[in-house]
Amino acid sequence: MTHEHISHASVTMSARRVGVDTYQELVVYMRRDCAVCRSEGFTAQARVQLDCGPRRIIATLNVVDDWLAEGQAGLSESAWAALQPTEGASLLVSHAPSLDSLSHVRAKVYGHRLGGDAFRAVVGDITAGRYSDLHLATFITACAGDHLDLAETVSLTRAMIDVGDRLDWGRGRVVDKHCVGGLPGNRTTLLVVPIVAACGLTMPKTSSRAITSPAGTADTMEVLAPVDLDIAAMRRTVERTGACIVWGGSVRLSPADDILIRVERPLDLDSEGQLVASVLSKKAAAGSTHVLIDLPVGPTAKVRSAEAAQTLGRRLVEVGRAIGLEVALRVTDGLQPVGRGIGPALEARDVLAVLRRQADAPDDLRQRALRLAGDILELGGAAPAGTGLDLATEVLADGRAWAKFAAICEAQGGLREVPLASHRRVIEAPSGGRITAIDNRVLSRAAKLAGAPKAAAAGVDVHARLGDIVRPGQPLFTLHAQAPGELAYARQYIETRPPIFQISEVS
Amino acid sequence: MTHEHISHASVTMSARRVGVDTYQELVVYMRRDCAVCRSEGFTAQARVQLDCGPRRIIATLNVVDDWLAEGQAGLSESAWAALQPTEGASLLVSHAPSLDSLSHVRAKVYGHRLGGDAFRAVVGDITAGRYSDLHLATFITACAGDHLDLAETVSLTRAMIDVGDRLDWGRGRVVDKHCVGGLPGNRTTLLVVPIVAACGLTMPKTSSRAITSPAGTADTMEVLAPVDLDIAAMRRTVERTGACIVWGGSVRLSPADDILIRVERPLDLDSEGQLVASVLSKKAAAGSTHVLIDLPVGPTAKVRSAEAAQTLGRRLVEVGRAIGLEVALRVTDGLQPVGRGIGPALEARDVLAVLRRQADAPDDLRQRALRLAGDILELGGAAPAGTGLDLATEVLADGRAWAKFAAICEAQGGLREVPLASHRRVIEAPSGGRITAIDNRVLSRAAKLAGAPKAAAAGVDVHARLGDIVRPGQPLFTLHAQAPGELAYARQYIETRPPIFQISEVS
Repeated sequence: MTHEHISHASVTMSARRVGVDTYQELVVYMRRDCAVCRSEGFTAQARVQLDCGPRRIIATLNVVDDWLAEGQAGLSESAWAALQPTEGASLLVSHAPSLDSLSHVRAKVYGHRLGGDAFRAVVGDITAGRYSDLHLATFITACAGDHLDLAETVSLTRAMIDVGDRLDWGRGRVVDKHCVGGLPGNRTTLLVVPIVAACGLTMPKTSSRAITSPAGTADTMEVLAPVDLDIAAMRRTVERTGACIVWGGSVRLSPADDILIRVERPLDLDSEGQLVASVLSKKAAAGSTHVLIDLPVGPTAKVRSAEAAQTLGRRLVEVGRAIGLEVALRVTDGLQPVGRGIGPALEARDVLAVLRRQADAPDDLRQRALRLAGDILELGGAAPAGTGLDLATEVLADGRAWAKFAAICEAQGGLREVPLASHRRVIEAPSGGRITAIDNRVLSRAAKLAGAPKAAAAGVDVHARLGDIVRPGQPLFTLHAQAPGELAYARQYIETRPPIFQISEVS
Repeated sequence: MTHEHISHASVTMSARRVGVDTYQELVVYMRRDCAVCRSEGFTAQARVQLDCGPRRIIATLNVVDDWLAEGQAGLSESAWAALQPTEGASLLVSHAPSLDSLSHVRAKVYGHRLGGDAFRAVVGDITAGRYSDLHLATFITACAGDHLDLAETVSLTRAMIDVGDRLDWGRGRVVDKHCVGGLPGNRTTLLVVPIVAACGLTMPKTSSRAITSPAGTADTMEVLAPVDLDIAAMRRTVERTGACIVWGGSVRLSPADDILIRVERPLDLDSEGQLVASVLSKKAAAGSTHVLIDLPVGPTAKVRSAEAAQTLGRRLVEVGRAIGLEVALRVTDGLQPVGRGIGPALEARDVLAVLRRQADAPDDLRQRALRLAGDILELGGAAPAGTGLDLATEVLADGRAWAKFAAICEAQGGLREVPLASHRRVIEAPSGGRITAIDNRVLSRAAKLAGAPKAAAAGVDVHARLGDIVRPGQPLFTLHAQAPGELAYARQYIETRPPIFQISEVS
């Protein structure tokens, strides 16, 4: 179907920015009685194609009764950003072409295997913005759980790499790491990158924002420095410091992933195939050659058992091999939160304490980061086998890691102050005894209800750890929020759940 | 979580009708800088609870930059209809409570079986309007294809019956029929109901609007008489005439189904479990005791093979037995469209031609309806076994069926004129020969692109049938549309597909 065909049925309207934030769904508002709605037969939730100069989007129609003049097409904030018209600019409006790739999505829903062409067609249409949020939800659900096999996961990963930009650093080994989330506060990346870069390795780190967690690495890094760098700015940072920690979405590496994540977030679904494709497409597109994957395992972490870690790890290694990435794994303890803070600002505070070698720095976070950095130093050839941990420890202890981190933040746009939440509430131990279990999922949920990650200072600050003996009334954790409503909501949630900390009487 | 708890975090705002038709998704618009957004920490696409007197909804938030005054909450048309405030009325606004039933939806996505409690929780929350469109899409996808087993289908059906009203006619056997769609123009219900009622049986028919087809029975009936009857009006119609043909959604029988259908429609997914639950929950809630299911089978019909019909038929009979309904089946020929029209008004025209015994009435539609009516007359005890077809034929031929149909239309609010489309395009045979195949799916899609069912007069009028010998240039079918853009769009679609009619040279 050529553009010429479509233009037979298109009409010119004038663009108006209506200032509605639809959480990135592209929406166009048109009067029910306007000439276009009448002659073209558009009805509510129709999919409409809009052309403005060289830019084209497919938007969902919301029909309005007034507040727009005849001939005006109102654009949501996301549609305005995508089309970039001026106020009153001419838009060519037509029915969206029928979306053939949806037949592949349906086939997947019905349990069929999809080939490479199918994934290319689906991912291409997703990246071009042709899928409505409902279509995205269906694709995500159809691929969730273990519904994608190895070949399908490889196909999805390749399709996601191919639709975006791909970096080439021209430097031989380029290292990277990724932590499969689910463990609140596990913010080792912000420590590993400066340690490794201080030893001369190249580590251009792109990180994601939170999908289902209270903070992604990019959310936490953003508390300390800008992360919305374009590829030129990212390249300058890496050339100057050997590393960077930026948000992957802003550099258009695997842009399909960013679109999927937007809908995955409210759905809160785990998906092995999409997890692998998301992680590895970002790594490959970022030009990495050697990647360490951190797999925290625990009953309330994202990966709940050693067997699940093995299955997921094998899939990561196999897909990596298929697309030319060497993937190494480290299974870590996922029994309890790492560090003390859960939420962007509280986690950033923990990271700074470790880098600055403060006496009160959380030692578990420090130890985890050193082990992972040691692995990467060996994987990247900067340390002989068995000596990576020692080198990492030395570089953190002598201040080179902190100097490197400060240099990275400066190169990305300047080191920032960590904000403090305006509303807090301490939650105390109802009885005395030994802490025998901590529910990471409920803690994460409480941090999210308190406003994290959108409100950077919001979250949970944890004061007690597994094995600690506590008195009745001793603080277990503190809720941090930027708004009283969110604080109340998080408290309410906690009060209606079984206790987050299990405390057993000490005999 | 009690209402008292929630009210701690709620704020009062004033209702404003903003006249946006969001295709029934409940949306609330609030200023980014309003006191509530700031103090409560609402962000775009948050789920917000709104109370207005005794009414409560959960709506999706769209944040706006201006066009609302401080303290105003703008309501979409659907939210306005659900809350029924007056302009400026006080609304209590708070965060939506967390939605625990989503954990069941996730379990289903991951391939787990759900029990009765899980379906009751999910269906209860759906009916209460607590699911966003994304959540609905995920639930529909998770249950699609053959993902629900017998016990789950029974549980879903029971849950859908229990959340709505259930009618009791106090009359012994109450008969009903349902056609599992996919066959364009198969509008036998409008003939079967008056035939059966003219023989004294009780047939309170509730029908659905189109889900993925160009017209549902309710859409076609609406061309001829009002179908949005409440239960009192439906009861009056049945008391006066022994029957009715109304839209199931307006009488709140299985209200969850109406919510699911709204999202199923744009997704266009087949789902055996949801199909069975949808059909049987409506029948049980309507007070039926004996139900005939018409299963048209053909390579491009909804049910594509005799085996698929058997599987689906068995599931319908088994679930029927579990909920106390006697279900009989008739597998019919689904090779080609029934009658000539595809689309509400064109199908209504065919129905009237049969009832009025016009010489040009489509005989295939007439024959199908008589066979089904014969089955029901026997199932309902109005005709001895083997004599149903003769009785049905007699009642149609002597005008009693037409008189009964006119009486039903009058009782529902008055017989209407059939509208004609303002834009038409004849599609001719490109070559001469015998018609050896017709692609029902592409014909249906063309009718939908032409505007059906929203534009009642839109659709496709088919002039040739399987086995016919045609000349080059002979009309095969005519596209009908209410808008030139839709006519062009349907033509465009047809032009980019393989031929809908396969014509083989006659040797």
